[in-house]
Amino acid sequence: MSANRWLLPDGIDEVLPERAAQVELLRRQLLDLYHRWGYDLVIPPLVEFADSLLSGTGADLDLMTFRITDQLSGRMLGVRADITPQAVRMDAHSLRREGPSRLCYAGTVLHTRPRRPLQSRAPISIGVELFGESSVAADIEVIELFLATLVDVGVATPCLDIGHVDILRGLLADSGLAPAQRDELFELMQRKASGEIDAFISREVANGALAQQLRALPTLIGGSEVLQRAEQQLAGAPPAVLAALAQLRAVVDALLPSGINIHIDLSESPGFHYHTGVVFAAYLPGHGKAIGNGGRYDAIGAQFGRPRPATGFAFDLKELAGAAAVVANRGTGIFVAHAEQPDRRLQIEQLRASGERVVEGFAGQRVDFAELRCDRQLCWRDGSWQLERV
Amino acid sequence: MSANRWLLPDGIDEVLPERAAQVELLRRQLLDLYHRWGYDLVIPPLVEFADSLLSGTGADLDLMTFRITDQLSGRMLGVRADITPQAVRMDAHSLRREGPSRLCYAGTVLHTRPRRPLQSRAPISIGVELFGESSVAADIEVIELFLATLVDVGVATPCLDIGHVDILRGLLADSGLAPAQRDELFELMQRKASGEIDAFISREVANGALAQQLRALPTLIGGSEVLQRAEQQLAGAPPAVLAALAQLRAVVDALLPSGINIHIDLSESPGFHYHTGVVFAAYLPGHGKAIGNGGRYDAIGAQFGRPRPATGFAFDLKELAGAAAVVANRGTGIFVAHAEQPDRRLQIEQLRASGERVVEGFAGQRVDFAELRCDRQLCWRDGSWQLERV
Repeated sequence: MSANRWLLPDGIDEVLPERAAQVELLRRQLLDLYHRWGYDLVIPPLVEFADSLLSGTGADLDLMTFRITDQLSGRMLGVRADITPQAVRMDAHSLRREGPSRLCYAGTVLHTRPRRPLQSRAPISIGVELFGESSVAADIEVIELFLATLVDVGVATPCLDIGHVDILRGLLADSGLAPAQRDELFELMQRKASGEIDAFISREVANGALAQQLRALPTLIGGSEVLQRAEQQLAGAPPAVLAALAQLRAVVDALLPSGINIHIDLSESPGFHYHTGVVFAAYLPGHGKAIGNGGRYDAIGAQFGRPRPATGFAFDLKELAGAAAVVANRGTGIFVAHAEQPDRRLQIEQLRASGERVVEGFAGQRVDFAELRCDRQLCWRDGSWQLERV
Repeated sequence: MSANRWLLPDGIDEVLPERAAQVELLRRQLLDLYHRWGYDLVIPPLVEFADSLLSGTGADLDLMTFRITDQLSGRMLGVRADITPQAVRMDAHSLRREGPSRLCYAGTVLHTRPRRPLQSRAPISIGVELFGESSVAADIEVIELFLATLVDVGVATPCLDIGHVDILRGLLADSGLAPAQRDELFELMQRKASGEIDAFISREVANGALAQQLRALPTLIGGSEVLQRAEQQLAGAPPAVLAALAQLRAVVDALLPSGINIHIDLSESPGFHYHTGVVFAAYLPGHGKAIGNGGRYDAIGAQFGRPRPATGFAFDLKELAGAAAVVANRGTGIFVAHAEQPDRRLQIEQLRASGERVVEGFAGQRVDFAELRCDRQLCWRDGSWQLERV
């Protein structure tokens, strides 16, 4: 019985000292970066009424959210699975700023099941949200800060995946397909099931131009040059699709000078259901899943009585810490054996005040300097204090 | 409907920018302090199997813990209400150090109901644990660090409350009272219900010496001089009680030189049921509830197959931030209006790299410098960049 008390649930992990120092280093570094870009730290609550947490956010987030009954109110609480809807509520209700509002946060979220196989169910979500600006300039600022995050922690040569929710959605809106059929095609596109996509379109889509545009989508994958092909092949698409393409063009043109490796995929729609515009994600060479992602979500705020355009991103700090080149230096330390000596306490206080890590020994302690992470020892020799290497 | 989507559950709060900066400042400052004292940061998980989280911790913590069903395993999870038992598991199982082990942490915990009226149900718990040393030297180190925490954040003239679980428990153990009766007397003592205590003792305790000792307890309240009275009045008490008094004496003697305001209460037993030895709490003038508390708990580790003596403390970081004299400087900032200008991006990057907070404007933005928290503006004047006061 006592053996399995050690086990943690699948997808739930603890962080031991070495890794914890690394996570803490990155946490500070990134919150400081976001501060310099004008993003104010907020600390949203771990739980809220499930109604508030999940209004207008879509079924995916709903399924990922743990619910518990509040014994005080008898109402249902949700443990946050995503901090973005909380930031929306804070912007709409608690802050009520007139102009653009920039917020950042770092906190644990909890998922009923992993978003992808082997992914953590309790990521430490760190990210930013920019409210109140609908122009593509906001998308660009947020993507630039997303990339600055990766540069700041020294993540090597990431690839930036860019898409737009309105490309596929805009084509489907004009398709005359029933909602269930749209969902089916949407799902086939996400899986890139090309044979099935072809069959579906032949069977269900009568409009020849639309069928051609839908068939083109899964081929519109690649570097930034894809955009030019898309502009040609989707030239006759509905206005929402053309507007989406123009936004992507503006984003890509702004990012090209940075030299970032851009990957465009017009059939895929990463992120959550609540996304409404430009969406993006970062991939590392050799990793199948995104290390961070974000995008525009202009609709959630309406649930709180104040619709504001919005875009933002989030990383799992623990995953980022694993990929970062920046490495925390946990430092060394000074050991002080147990003894009665003059000014002992003062010596220790002064060393700590100067930034040193000082570990005190207990009477009879068998000292293992490696375990204690100490490279020096404070000793009382011939009437004075000496720092000696060990 | 949309109006009450703004409401947060009772006892659950969000932290807006100004206060969040303060909380973050203290968080860093205290984790750095704990590092200098040799305490390693760990990040225990937000949820664990309820079995692991609550083994051997007592009914109080059990009642405070939210439970949710894990959809992956079908087993019951608990959202941590206290980080201490998690640190015990990490020390016993994950770290398995031979010698004393020092850990620290900062993370949100969740309570089904507030521990005291008006208290937060989601405190950010920040604290330390010291494992592997049973001598009173460990109690003293931890209490010194507890006090150093308050000094570090500039909390004015706290009062340190010290007690020992074994005083009352030791007397009760020898009383021949049934468990239910012991609980009743214990509860009367916590309420300091002197009339009821007298009546209970007259009715239930036949042993005259013991009755006298129990009656003395509620009067053994006051400054450090109480200890001397206790040593006289409890001179004939069971060995466990005398050992407890000797430990209190050692702790008080070690702390007296610091000049801290000590308050001893031998009838009260603050903290959680799992505490086993010296317990302590800090009170601020004019505040009825403790700002932080801690104590020895030598028994929890046995549940994980490795019993280790242990002591530690925790604060609610949000409450501490409210009481601290140290105040976060959220800084000012530089606003840059939207425009196409040579080297604009480079200028902004350089300012940010130098530590400045730079907020970019959007096209057509109505600028409110106060809302943006900017005191300067970067302007392009007559062919060069100028920083101007606003």
